[in-house]
Amino acid sequence: MQDSKALASIPLTPANTAPPAPQFPWPKPFTSAMFLSFDVDAESAWTAKDAAHAERLVTMSYGGYEARVGTPKLLELLDQLDLKATFFITGWAVDAHPAMAESILKAGHEIGHHGYHHLLVDPGDPVDEEVDRGLEALKRHLGVVPKGYRAPVGEFTEALRVALVRKGIVYTSSFRDDVRPYRHRLKDGRPGTIELPVTSSYDDWMHGLSNRFSPRSIFPKEHVLSMWKDDLDETRDWGAMVTTVLHPQVSGRPMRLRLLREFLIYAKSCSDLWITTGEAIAANYQNHEAGGSAAAAE
Amino acid sequence: MQDSKALASIPLTPANTAPPAPQFPWPKPFTSAMFLSFDVDAESAWTAKDAAHAERLVTMSYGGYEARVGTPKLLELLDQLDLKATFFITGWAVDAHPAMAESILKAGHEIGHHGYHHLLVDPGDPVDEEVDRGLEALKRHLGVVPKGYRAPVGEFTEALRVALVRKGIVYTSSFRDDVRPYRHRLKDGRPGTIELPVTSSYDDWMHGLSNRFSPRSIFPKEHVLSMWKDDLDETRDWGAMVTTVLHPQVSGRPMRLRLLREFLIYAKSCSDLWITTGEAIAANYQNHEAGGSAAAAE
Amino acid sequence: MQDSKALASIPLTPANTAPPAPQFPWPKPFTSAMFLSFDVDAESAWTAKDAAHAERLVTMSYGGYEARVGTPKLLELLDQLDLKATFFITGWAVDAHPAMAESILKAGHEIGHHGYHHLLVDPGDPVDEEVDRGLEALKRHLGVVPKGYRAPVGEFTEALRVALVRKGIVYTSSFRDDVRPYRHRLKDGRPGTIELPVTSSYDDWMHGLSNRFSPRSIFPKEHVLSMWKDDLDETRDWGAMVTTVLHPQVSGRPMRLRLLREFLIYAKSCSDLWITTGEAIAANYQNHEAGGSAAAAE
Amino acid sequence: MQDSKALASIPLTPANTAPPAPQFPWPKPFTSAMFLSFDVDAESAWTAKDAAHAERLVTMSYGGYEARVGTPKLLELLDQLDLKATFFITGWAVDAHPAMAESILKAGHEIGHHGYHHLLVDPGDPVDEEVDRGLEALKRHLGVVPKGYRAPVGEFTEALRVALVRKGIVYTSSFRDDVRPYRHRLKDGRPGTIELPVTSSYDDWMHGLSNRFSPRSIFPKEHVLSMWKDDLDETRDWGAMVTTVLHPQVSGRPMRLRLLREFLIYAKSCSDLWITTGEAIAANYQNHEAGGSAAAAE
Repeated sequence: MQDSKALASIPLTPANTAPPAPQFPWPKPFTSAMFLSFDVDAESAWTAKDAAHAERLVTMSYGGYEARVGTPKLLELLDQLDLKATFFITGWAVDAHPAMAESILKAGHEIGHHGYHHLLVDPGDPVDEEVDRGLEALKRHLGVVPKGYRAPVGEFTEALRVALVRKGIVYTSSFRDDVRPYRHRLKDGRPGTIELPVTSSYDDWMHGLSNRFSPRSIFPKEHVLSMWKDDLDETRDWGAMVTTVLHPQVSGRPMRLRLLREFLIYAKSCSDLWITTGEAIAANYQNHEAGGSAAAAE
Repeated sequence: MQDSKALASIPLTPANTAPPAPQFPWPKPFTSAMFLSFDVDAESAWTAKDAAHAERLVTMSYGGYEARVGTPKLLELLDQLDLKATFFITGWAVDAHPAMAESILKAGHEIGHHGYHHLLVDPGDPVDEEVDRGLEALKRHLGVVPKGYRAPVGEFTEALRVALVRKGIVYTSSFRDDVRPYRHRLKDGRPGTIELPVTSSYDDWMHGLSNRFSPRSIFPKEHVLSMWKDDLDETRDWGAMVTTVLHPQVSGRPMRLRLLREFLIYAKSCSDLWITTGEAIAANYQNHEAGGSAAAAE
Repeated sequence: MQDSKALASIPLTPANTAPPAPQFPWPKPFTSAMFLSFDVDAESAWTAKDAAHAERLVTMSYGGYEARVGTPKLLELLDQLDLKATFFITGWAVDAHPAMAESILKAGHEIGHHGYHHLLVDPGDPVDEEVDRGLEALKRHLGVVPKGYRAPVGEFTEALRVALVRKGIVYTSSFRDDVRPYRHRLKDGRPGTIELPVTSSYDDWMHGLSNRFSPRSIFPKEHVLSMWKDDLDETRDWGAMVTTVLHPQVSGRPMRLRLLREFLIYAKSCSDLWITTGEAIAANYQNHEAGGSAAAAE
Repeated sequence: MQDSKALASIPLTPANTAPPAPQFPWPKPFTSAMFLSFDVDAESAWTAKDAAHAERLVTMSYGGYEARVGTPKLLELLDQLDLKATFFITGWAVDAHPAMAESILKAGHEIGHHGYHHLLVDPGDPVDEEVDRGLEALKRHLGVVPKGYRAPVGEFTEALRVALVRKGIVYTSSFRDDVRPYRHRLKDGRPGTIELPVTSSYDDWMHGLSNRFSPRSIFPKEHVLSMWKDDLDETRDWGAMVTTVLHPQVSGRPMRLRLLREFLIYAKSCSDLWITTGEAIAANYQNHEAGGSAAAAE
């Protein structure tokens, strides 16, 4: 049991004090949305866990798959399906694999911020350097000032939430507590970023194939497709949104790309579903906040 | 190997000395029962593991899903299916999310006790404060004096078993050793609470989607539905009962709610199955103990 | 990396020096065999891991399910299917649940030795007390002198192998290195027990439902049945044997008993398959060793 | 969070600086390839983790299955299907089970190097002894000078990469970063071995059945076959290659051999697929490097 001092430190209020997500309409003719997004960690997925992994060449090769095969193959798929997505890229991946990063930008996809070294943030950790180095790498190599941010390893602290507002980030996409966009409320009451929430089911990292030492099993197409369709279909019934969290080192593998193709073809067949970038969903949210009537989708 | 002193400390008697579960009939026209219950932990599921999680905002957001989305959606589902259930709520969740707790009560469901901070009890731990704070929160916000108790993280000690009797709890629902209700026998021989036993298969936490660091995989509808139907159908053949242990942060997710809807529609189609609250099953047990003949279900 | 001294300690010979399993025929009209066996650990499955579990009442209740529900239900199933099996019972389970143990014996099944406290044996551990106490409990409560032994938690040392021969054990059933019976060769060259080897696929503990903190997932009927049938059908093609390692606290649960019933009905439909006890398979082996021609099955 | 010194040590360049895999054609009439390979670890899979396992006889028996049953059965299967494969064998397995190793060679399969004690290499570890002892064992018992090397437990360091070139190894098969063969570039710019990359999906160790304490679940045929076919079919569409990493202690088990048979029969039915050894794929690569036109497959 934790000691009573620790227990006494737990606030008796929700950790997230944002008001309920507003129920504004999606752009016509859509009644639900899919935020199609990828996290490009490359080798930084592994050095973030242990810098010494840099010399473990096979461990690193899981991440190296992204530049050599995974990202090109996924760009090809998106092109064939005529879809635009958001790619959250770590600064390290941009520095180490500039050609890969440029190919994403050139293909017309949105570039988002994903930290520099893909560091998991813990309470008390400084956050500025990791955010700033990420911004600089995106600016220097791609000329991009990102609107969106996804937390590496998916954690957030208040310090990070505040820093991102200060640095001009418009939307974030890491929280697991909703099925519609909402605006964060900082601890001091000021408005934070717009949140485009995520869920574990669309995180390909959860279904194996990412790590040879992971206890998590690898699942076949039928298994993952069933989950993804169920989550999508129920969400469409709710008029809500789903967010994918896909990694080229997982979803760029042959068996996974085959599954993703089948899923995206299904999603495209849903005429009520807006498949789009984070930028577009955030703009639609801002338009709603500004009192705008529902715009048609681009 | 454990040392011989430790081994010598193991009693040569069953840990649970309750006599066999009595074989009294279920209320007519039913021949089996489903105790439909939910555990509402909200963020306390996470702070119970580590108070420092209170500042890990994404970890907390798993729990925060309950108030924002999961619980409202489940209440809607139960209303559509015209089912009443028992919701075991932690005191913390009631304090932090009073509106959520009130909405459950208002919808006509039973409210049960689920600890205050969702603390796992270990041998030697004091139990009074956690139980009392939970009772106070239910009383203060909801005016409820709960009849039922489910142990947070599912553990029990003799001290807890004794304390619950002293505090007027009528039934508990945490033990994994039976398929019918039975009355606990305390170590000193006195009668304890009525136990409505549970099983891992109906605990949605076991099938993934609860935690981004869990090694446990996420399973699709076909997988979970097959287990739940098999467990139910065999139990019906036995004339026994099943107990669900569902969490709004898991079963309130779109893909899981879709599965639960399908399962409950199936369960409702079983005309021999009494789907009800813990309170009702405990009352039927008391009626039996009092020598009452089998009453018809309400 | 392990140090060179540790590496130098690894012998450059197989750990098991038994000659290949002899290819004698199964009793007519059978051409393959299933050793149908159960491990009855009851609560000792848990106290073996930590004696302090004795006061964790829900953890203990997993084991307590065996006496209250699991074993009676399995005995009923075997009776319906007219099958005899071997039950390896820990001495603790016999001491704490004598009525359960007697009911197994009375139903005509073979009783085997499964340790006393279900202790995992490690190199250097003394083995006599655990073996002797198990023998005494079987003798005192049941009047049984067991022919078979299965290692608790499935581990073996040379000291244990030697002790079992000295104490008159005829066959063991714990090694994972064959698909036919063979005779152990002790380190000093003397013959050891007859081994009836096992495999992980038929160990119900591997497929979940055993433990609420286990990272192992719970699998539905289709999944387990497919494995069990594949393993059985291929083994029948090989003219070899399978061994089940089933636990009443797992396979006695409703969904699992339903699966086991379906599997055993399938197995019984295989007219080439001898479904029997360890005692019978060991006797057939001894008959072969003695130069006997293939006897017909009882 | 890692300290800033550790983070500063991470190079801002890809860990693997090899140029993209060349897109030369496969030998006519093939347009894709399967490198059919097995890792024969035997008991060294376990002593590599802990030398003390040598006295844990059941743990060792998982590995012992290879010599007693798994390898003979797989050789029989390959013979029936008229397929040649590469077997990477640890030096320990050759020393302890020379007859098993000889039977592989005699059946016409390629023998590759797989370390001596199956040691996981870590940055800073010496590598010469493990490589040399492996070479000596293959030479002494089989008269083989291997062309191929697969890293035990699948890890690599620069020191190992350099040592293998120095010792005349032609190709390696351990990296996870491509779907076509490529030539390594050492840190000093010199050419390294030819890499025949692998992927987790074809590593049978990932799908359970390898270890009784593993948290990884055991999966049935439908599950694994679906993955293997999807990975193969997509790879064929890409004109690329797959590499199997199969272990006789897993894929030699009845249920797994049955699955492998079905998979290989399917693979053989793909007339565009070259199923072959590492040696043959490496020779084809060398032929391409030497400017040779696409040769027909042997």
